[in-house]
Amino acid sequence: MILDRVHALVFDVFGTVVDWRSGIARDAAPFLARHGTANADPAAFADAWRNRYDPAMDAVRSGRRPFVRLDVLHRENLEAALPSFGIDPARVPASELDALNLAWHRLDPWPDVVPGLTRLKQRFIVAPLSNGNVILMLDMAKRAGLPWDAILGAELAQAYKPDPEAYLRTVDVLAMRPDEVCMVAAHNGDLAAARACGLATAFVPRPSEHGPGQTTDLQPEQDWDVTARDFGELADKLGA
Amino acid sequence: MILDRVHALVFDVFGTVVDWRSGIARDAAPFLARHGTANADPAAFADAWRNRYDPAMDAVRSGRRPFVRLDVLHRENLEAALPSFGIDPARVPASELDALNLAWHRLDPWPDVVPGLTRLKQRFIVAPLSNGNVILMLDMAKRAGLPWDAILGAELAQAYKPDPEAYLRTVDVLAMRPDEVCMVAAHNGDLAAARACGLATAFVPRPSEHGPGQTTDLQPEQDWDVTARDFGELADKLGA
Repeated sequence: MILDRVHALVFDVFGTVVDWRSGIARDAAPFLARHGTANADPAAFADAWRNRYDPAMDAVRSGRRPFVRLDVLHRENLEAALPSFGIDPARVPASELDALNLAWHRLDPWPDVVPGLTRLKQRFIVAPLSNGNVILMLDMAKRAGLPWDAILGAELAQAYKPDPEAYLRTVDVLAMRPDEVCMVAAHNGDLAAARACGLATAFVPRPSEHGPGQTTDLQPEQDWDVTARDFGELADKLGA
Repeated sequence: MILDRVHALVFDVFGTVVDWRSGIARDAAPFLARHGTANADPAAFADAWRNRYDPAMDAVRSGRRPFVRLDVLHRENLEAALPSFGIDPARVPASELDALNLAWHRLDPWPDVVPGLTRLKQRFIVAPLSNGNVILMLDMAKRAGLPWDAILGAELAQAYKPDPEAYLRTVDVLAMRPDEVCMVAAHNGDLAAARACGLATAFVPRPSEHGPGQTTDLQPEQDWDVTARDFGELADKLGA
């Protein structure tokens, strides 16, 4: 059996488990129509909001800023992204911005996720190892029926991936060796960072995460321990 | 509806959710028979091990010692408890002590717990707010089928109940006000500490937690927001 030492599967979430781009576009569309120009593209807005994600976390990773949960960064990034869509955030009620910020809590999983996780959970501990914070992951899971055993990740580790502490503190909380934990992700960079910490790795590509023109992460870029086309095939390959 | 502002129920676990005394006695019995005097009482051993629980956490609560997870304290307490049962821990293989220490991961829930939690989970976020660490709670939940939405508690808060930080950091992670979170416990002291932090409170007595002669926590000692005889009645009273 592949990965026969592994007891826990930890999952990247944005992109790997849920389709953030469609979900954000869906929730942003009525907001943009109400406040912005008539023909703002909701998918372009989702991309613009998401593009500020990594730079915002970099401030924490580099130590320039103490750890703050992702909900806080998303809220700041929302205000920063609006002006190029013709919206002055100072003219929008804070309650409306707060409500739109919760769009990240309402993302839908890819269709294979719930049945795949349900099978994998029979054999492994399954938990997110996401940069999303605990209540974001909890709200998402309750709405979508994601059967996590626990919510692990950046807020528990107080570190954002790909900082090694995000992986190593998660392994420590599980009281396992790194090779007893497998990172599952649609992103080669996440897996490379996990492998550098000694974790096992599983690649599940999500070729439409970034929409029809996606050019990145279409293929495995290293010999990951497992590659599967979706969570169903992952369960097949892991004997779950 | 009682507690109509509450979105999350957080649970004490040792005593409230699981019957630690019977579980520890069951797993200790063969160990004691193998290493100790012929007629050591496994329930008395469970009590002796558990009696060292609060003093061990006091070292952390008082700041004399940095936070360490409960598995570490249990392991130290095991070695400390054995001599009065005629066993020198230095003469027992460490692997056997490690294995017995995992008895805390294998405790059985009271019979009303799984059906009650399953109902409550339909309406509320349900999570442990225990002094037990994450992997202890995870192993217990996987074995017993406890349908937690997340594992919250001391290790995430880096503080042991009844330190206010244990409650307040949990509320903060949930991004809720304290009165949107209800502590469920069989122990008046736990509820008093939670109430002092602004949480709602629910008392579910467990009159045989300490065995047939129990004299404490048989009755509510304050006007808790809810009192229920078991998790089924708790679900009834909360409309779940």
